[in-house]
Amino acid sequence: MSEDNNKSKMVGKQSVMFQNPPCIIAASSIAGKKEGEGPLGSLFDVIQEDALLGKKTWEEAESELMKEAASKVLQKAGLKNKDIRYLIGGDLLGQLIATSFGIAEMEIPLLGIYGACSTMGEAMSIGAMMVEGGFADRIIAITSSHFAGAEKQFRMPLDYGNQRPYSATWTVTGSGAVIIEDRKFNKNNNEKVVSIKGVTSGKIVDYGLKDSMNMGAAMAPAAYETIKQNFEDFNIKPDYYDKIITGDLGYVGKNILIDLLKEQGYDISGNHMDCGIEIFDKESQDTHAGGSGCGCSAITFTSYILKQLKEGSWKRVLFVPTGALLSQVSFNEGNSVPGIAHAVMVEAE
Amino acid sequence: MSEDNNKSKMVGKQSVMFQNPPCIIAASSIAGKKEGEGPLGSLFDVIQEDALLGKKTWEEAESELMKEAASKVLQKAGLKNKDIRYLIGGDLLGQLIATSFGIAEMEIPLLGIYGACSTMGEAMSIGAMMVEGGFADRIIAITSSHFAGAEKQFRMPLDYGNQRPYSATWTVTGSGAVIIEDRKFNKNNNEKVVSIKGVTSGKIVDYGLKDSMNMGAAMAPAAYETIKQNFEDFNIKPDYYDKIITGDLGYVGKNILIDLLKEQGYDISGNHMDCGIEIFDKESQDTHAGGSGCGCSAITFTSYILKQLKEGSWKRVLFVPTGALLSQVSFNEGNSVPGIAHAVMVEAE
Repeated sequence: MSEDNNKSKMVGKQSVMFQNPPCIIAASSIAGKKEGEGPLGSLFDVIQEDALLGKKTWEEAESELMKEAASKVLQKAGLKNKDIRYLIGGDLLGQLIATSFGIAEMEIPLLGIYGACSTMGEAMSIGAMMVEGGFADRIIAITSSHFAGAEKQFRMPLDYGNQRPYSATWTVTGSGAVIIEDRKFNKNNNEKVVSIKGVTSGKIVDYGLKDSMNMGAAMAPAAYETIKQNFEDFNIKPDYYDKIITGDLGYVGKNILIDLLKEQGYDISGNHMDCGIEIFDKESQDTHAGGSGCGCSAITFTSYILKQLKEGSWKRVLFVPTGALLSQVSFNEGNSVPGIAHAVMVEAE
Repeated sequence: MSEDNNKSKMVGKQSVMFQNPPCIIAASSIAGKKEGEGPLGSLFDVIQEDALLGKKTWEEAESELMKEAASKVLQKAGLKNKDIRYLIGGDLLGQLIATSFGIAEMEIPLLGIYGACSTMGEAMSIGAMMVEGGFADRIIAITSSHFAGAEKQFRMPLDYGNQRPYSATWTVTGSGAVIIEDRKFNKNNNEKVVSIKGVTSGKIVDYGLKDSMNMGAAMAPAAYETIKQNFEDFNIKPDYYDKIITGDLGYVGKNILIDLLKEQGYDISGNHMDCGIEIFDKESQDTHAGGSGCGCSAITFTSYILKQLKEGSWKRVLFVPTGALLSQVSFNEGNSVPGIAHAVMVEAE
């Protein structure tokens, strides 16, 4: 990695390198039933068998997922609400109602954010900057999504029983949270300390795709631009990372991303992974192109990815949640589906 | 002001004090026709006579407002897109489509945020932290709203011609943007330098109100909590500020706020101002409780408030945009309207 910009936290065109990398001291993952039956099922903190979580609406159920993720991460860290300076988070629902109603009672200052399914990357980026900048000793970054709420919001009412094309993804029901802190901390001495070394924030990338049932293709160009920029800003090559992990490109988007980077001389085929592909078993779970949603990258990160880092199986990971910036209204009005991707450099030591 | 916490940027429970206060070096305000006919009309940079701005939909019109606000603030600062490290912004529409489609072509890394009508306060807070923390030399904070888009999103289709209760506010059509920079800068030596001294970030406050036609009452408790916390965190009294300026409480919310603070021994009746009250003439413009929307506080700040600061008429302002965290879905499902308010301490010197 180039040390040219060592004196500045700003690196290259779009990146930040932390001088005192903030640490991820705790994480939580609350998953739905289907996610619990998938390949990562044994790694989630809680699996909710009831899709409504005892509530009356999908939106309230998603709020409950988020509330549980926030409570669980505090419990795992042995902290109370008052120990958290800011909660930074969002979800996919219009006006972030899953977040607002989910964390209302926590009485923690809220910075609501929206980056579609890239939101966990955005939350961790802003949170890490606030902690390293001295504005907070400790923050929670959190996101959620719910299959039924997302279908209702973006696609078809479930009762309609429409057919799903193979390019469509399956929105993950789940909520994941991390606590980011300003000091090196490790509850368990057998585990590595995981910290955030830097971030590369994404621009909106729009190749003009209009198919809301093929969001992997819409988001792949944004992932491509952010990952390429990360390589350029830090003057590194793909093999700098043990894993380059996108959020929810799925099978369609993964191939496009690998091809786009290959054209620029970057081969990530050997170390690329996509949370949407990992979280479901394509064949037995009938999830077509893979998982998606704010919850997809969040619970994959807070279970599987962090575990690999803490156990020392991976040392350097580029975590790149990817978002499709459409709404029901923009889609119905015939607009394209712009993408965005926010990359977080996570390392174990 | 107490200097007890001088060594830390974190002050009290919910506030930040900047050691090197970032400056607001430029601002822009794009307003609709009705706003142009109001008391602040002569202060806006641009008044758009056409509510559709030549576009086919209200959403595209709002995107255009935001695009113009971003272009105008760059032009006024004599800067190009590439000089801006991050654009931090949002709007009221589901999934922030006004922002995404408005700034897509600018090719500036985007951090999308949502705090309902408190968004300008949240954008300026995050932006000031990123600049003071060394993560950006220069950012744009921007928000927008559009009367017709907001009515369609949250209330009744305009064609329905429903009657509006006197407690209802009128969503402002407009977009405002500021550039926040890491150095003292003043193009015009006759003007004061305006900087952001600190922020107090808000928690969600929910008194259980359910009337979406009385958002002033729903947001006043949030404004109360944030303003009281600002006084407590900095150990100051209301007269520390020349003006304490809320976003869009309107006539109903203003009275509630003043009463709530009075009960705690804080009298702000002499120096409180509300952007929603300033922007329209209640009698001649038939706007009932006042103006509202992300654009209301944004264009009032970027025109009238900044002018008073730069001319030296006011020295210290607490700018407190207020948001009502409802959505069409949460309202239809019978949920309450939680509020949030983010305070920014703006000073001229």
